[in-house]
Amino acid sequence: MSSPRSKVLIVGLGGVGVLAAYALEYNKKAEVTALIRSDYDRVIEKGYEINSVDYGHIEGFRPTHVVKTIEDAKKYGEFDFILVTTKNIPDIHVVEDAFADAVSDKTTIVLLQNGFGIEKATFERFPGHIVLSGVSMISSANFHGVVEHVGTDSLGIGYFDNGVSSKEEQQAKTKQFIELYENDAIDCHIDEDVKFSRWRKLVYNASFNTIGALVDLDVGRIQEAGGTDTLIKPTMREIFRVAASDGVTLDESLMDTMIHSDDGNWYAPSMLVDVRKGNQIELEIILGNVLEIAKQNNVEVPILSVLYNLLHLVQFRLKEQNGLINLPEERPLKKQKTSD
Amino acid sequence: MSSPRSKVLIVGLGGVGVLAAYALEYNKKAEVTALIRSDYDRVIEKGYEINSVDYGHIEGFRPTHVVKTIEDAKKYGEFDFILVTTKNIPDIHVVEDAFADAVSDKTTIVLLQNGFGIEKATFERFPGHIVLSGVSMISSANFHGVVEHVGTDSLGIGYFDNGVSSKEEQQAKTKQFIELYENDAIDCHIDEDVKFSRWRKLVYNASFNTIGALVDLDVGRIQEAGGTDTLIKPTMREIFRVAASDGVTLDESLMDTMIHSDDGNWYAPSMLVDVRKGNQIELEIILGNVLEIAKQNNVEVPILSVLYNLLHLVQFRLKEQNGLINLPEERPLKKQKTSD
Repeated sequence: MSSPRSKVLIVGLGGVGVLAAYALEYNKKAEVTALIRSDYDRVIEKGYEINSVDYGHIEGFRPTHVVKTIEDAKKYGEFDFILVTTKNIPDIHVVEDAFADAVSDKTTIVLLQNGFGIEKATFERFPGHIVLSGVSMISSANFHGVVEHVGTDSLGIGYFDNGVSSKEEQQAKTKQFIELYENDAIDCHIDEDVKFSRWRKLVYNASFNTIGALVDLDVGRIQEAGGTDTLIKPTMREIFRVAASDGVTLDESLMDTMIHSDDGNWYAPSMLVDVRKGNQIELEIILGNVLEIAKQNNVEVPILSVLYNLLHLVQFRLKEQNGLINLPEERPLKKQKTSD
Repeated sequence: MSSPRSKVLIVGLGGVGVLAAYALEYNKKAEVTALIRSDYDRVIEKGYEINSVDYGHIEGFRPTHVVKTIEDAKKYGEFDFILVTTKNIPDIHVVEDAFADAVSDKTTIVLLQNGFGIEKATFERFPGHIVLSGVSMISSANFHGVVEHVGTDSLGIGYFDNGVSSKEEQQAKTKQFIELYENDAIDCHIDEDVKFSRWRKLVYNASFNTIGALVDLDVGRIQEAGGTDTLIKPTMREIFRVAASDGVTLDESLMDTMIHSDDGNWYAPSMLVDVRKGNQIELEIILGNVLEIAKQNNVEVPILSVLYNLLHLVQFRLKEQNGLINLPEERPLKKQKTSD
């Protein structure tokens, strides 16, 4: 007799989320409830079309349950895992709000999201819960229900130590999730050192991602334009120093690895894609949290600070474009605050 | 008997250039030859339409001579003054090439252009010539022969010391040019300290101009978004320090003056306008030359350096947009140079 399927709620059905849903249902060990908003009607009617380097062409894929609200989702709980694959933009909206109502005592939360320090808000909101980290290498995007997937799914899963549960218990949940997710077509492995992995990925994201978004150039063009030596490497070195202050040693050779990771492609990193689409950017979890650590540990990060402050202005521009800020047509004539 | 008119060649008929032509012909003391390219046929046929805060509505204004090539211009020489009002982008084209053939021994060159250190190339190319500096406060733009002019013309004229001519001789030329230019409607005054004026203007241009261009926000929005304290003032302070190393003391109160100079307007500075139009930016003469002085004098300018390096990438993007750089559709798979 097979054990009952684990119940997984997925929040955020972008490219990563749809492929996670597919992987989790592939083994028939998990029963996925997908919480989606904008695409709901289309997905109910037609399902997803997936063109995948790992799975081939799939039409009409529907997770076991497709729901529009967290109230509807709760009907299919209690959830063993809640997998969060949304963008993480705490200055715009609180990601925990989207799924808080469906968290029960037994729920493990899996943050399959970009960035650094993202577990902090989760632990504050759900103290004592086990929270897993998913660091994903996958090139996939969901365009109105059609998912293009061109880079094989490689997912590292580990746990952010919650300081309450035993190591063994947290490890067990990590392994349980990997068992649900892994199959022959893809790679899902244990991430033994979540902190290291997140710092490692940040070496790329805090440099190419941020600079590309500011100057509207992909990784290849930044390099063609001479940006590798003038900006990318000096920015990476600042990340190395903050990581070291946080107890994580990154090897110098990592710079070259990152610099060559998109060789052969004019690759546009996610923040650049967001800016080009007019979406808000994941600024706080890519730079803001790092700057806080740098400040706490007295590490000088002049370049990261300028990049952050500039991108903060870009975020303001995007907010206005998205109607979150409304300015009068004529600029008010007032004494501006110039406080120092 | 009136003295014969002074001969003035104007190179670059944007908003500033057309209004300079108009001012110079207004007193009937100067005979203007205008060297233009793209608008030539239209100007020959219809002249300029000018909507001016200083002069009112003018239709069909034509400078005395309108020419398309420097060879044609030479027919109306020798020139007492060559007034250069083009953009100054030495990394894209050499501005001196446009008028070098029309410079004779008696010619005084007037650089009515943005930026810092712009006289260096002129002195190298035309050693011993008197070179005047024009620092203009004017809000005007030429859209295909229609010139909108909304801020009254205020022009400071001084001389860049050429190290050859006497002070008196250089002062005399300065006064001569002002006499040609000034009239009741506008303000044209002696600039007693060209170096000071150029540093002063740079406090604005090196901060609002560059940051606005990078984040695609006008001056008002930069301030609404909190950029005054995070970026504008720290950038201005770096300019203050480089100026001090160059012997120029700028008063702290200048920061506030500059910050409030566009109060009441959502003002887009020139570099932002250039980026929005897809034009190349005046990067070298606004930041590049300042960085050289900072380097010579061992002044640390971390923010200016990052802004420069980022805008260098923006310049690359604009070059590609303008067809000056052609990249293959597929990124070549080669070992990138990563030299340090």
